[in-house]
Amino acid sequence: MQTLDFFFEFASTYSYLAAMRVGDLARTAGVKVRWRPFLLGPIFQTQGWNDSPFNLYPQKGRYMWRDLERLAAELGLPFERPVPFPQSSLLAARVALVGLAENWGEAFCRAAFTAEFGEGRQIADQTVIADLLRGLGVVPQSVLERTQSVEIKAKLRAETESARVLGVFGAPTFVTADGELFWGNDRLEQALAWARK
Amino acid sequence: MQTLDFFFEFASTYSYLAAMRVGDLARTAGVKVRWRPFLLGPIFQTQGWNDSPFNLYPQKGRYMWRDLERLAAELGLPFERPVPFPQSSLLAARVALVGLAENWGEAFCRAAFTAEFGEGRQIADQTVIADLLRGLGVVPQSVLERTQSVEIKAKLRAETESARVLGVFGAPTFVTADGELFWGNDRLEQALAWARK
Repeated sequence: MQTLDFFFEFASTYSYLAAMRVGDLARTAGVKVRWRPFLLGPIFQTQGWNDSPFNLYPQKGRYMWRDLERLAAELGLPFERPVPFPQSSLLAARVALVGLAENWGEAFCRAAFTAEFGEGRQIADQTVIADLLRGLGVVPQSVLERTQSVEIKAKLRAETESARVLGVFGAPTFVTADGELFWGNDRLEQALAWARK
Repeated sequence: MQTLDFFFEFASTYSYLAAMRVGDLARTAGVKVRWRPFLLGPIFQTQGWNDSPFNLYPQKGRYMWRDLERLAAELGLPFERPVPFPQSSLLAARVALVGLAENWGEAFCRAAFTAEFGEGRQIADQTVIADLLRGLGVVPQSVLERTQSVEIKAKLRAETESARVLGVFGAPTFVTADGELFWGNDRLEQALAWARK
């Protein structure tokens, strides 16, 4: 089966849409998707940005929120703008890495994105994350402890470095086995079609 | 018939794709499109950019050229990267305004975009523009003279100011009669659907 790497950032609005769409589309396409959470912050810093470009460029930001609202409505997805934006995504990314090595990672990612952008909840808050984990039937305490392990911290740094080396500059980005990059929720279908070739 | 404003920039790569697609799609949708060339330079300057963001952010630029190449291939459109990029679009935009007030404006826009991004030609060069005009059966001399008129110069400034006031920050941007903005070639279909509502 062909594979497609799905690089996403929990603070990224368009990663929310892609995360909610990718499962069904990939199944239909017969493509295996590898979910790869990473942090955009270090990559934005190399471009001279110390905040989301949607905050640095207010017109672009205003447009993005309206665009997201329209797209979520079309897709039948809930939408509520989280304050502050962007949320700190470090905890959620580390929890996702724990879960992706087990069997609840993708479900956790969808739950975290829905909490953040569908309900406006605080994904940097341990009690929110614990609540989401319990909803998946996962006992929070040991997972939250593992997010502080050397192994998980190093794994997230390595994923972020992989993204950077592959040329990822935004999220979501899809990368095919032959190294083609497709940036943005808008390119998900094209990325899957390419992966199948 | 519903209308849709199509703001585009002759130096903009994704405006090329939109310009080549919009005619057929709008006819099928039953929407009247107003072609509105403008200059992105003054708008980028208010964001602190004195060059194309695709040059200022090289990774984004590399990605854009590859994305454009793939999309053009899918659409069956010719693609050749013009050097330098971005091209100065002032002359082409003024010529388009002359033509859009007559009956050859849209055909000129398609010809200019194809010359620039399909053949890598220099649209800032009067001899290239004259060549394109002759290809459309238009006598170049009087058109080129009118590009220097107070009226046409003021018209282009007014279109750029209109774009800015509407919140346009990139090209292409589609604006519906009820003030919805849709940014990017990727949003053309959604903009037409919205205009029909």
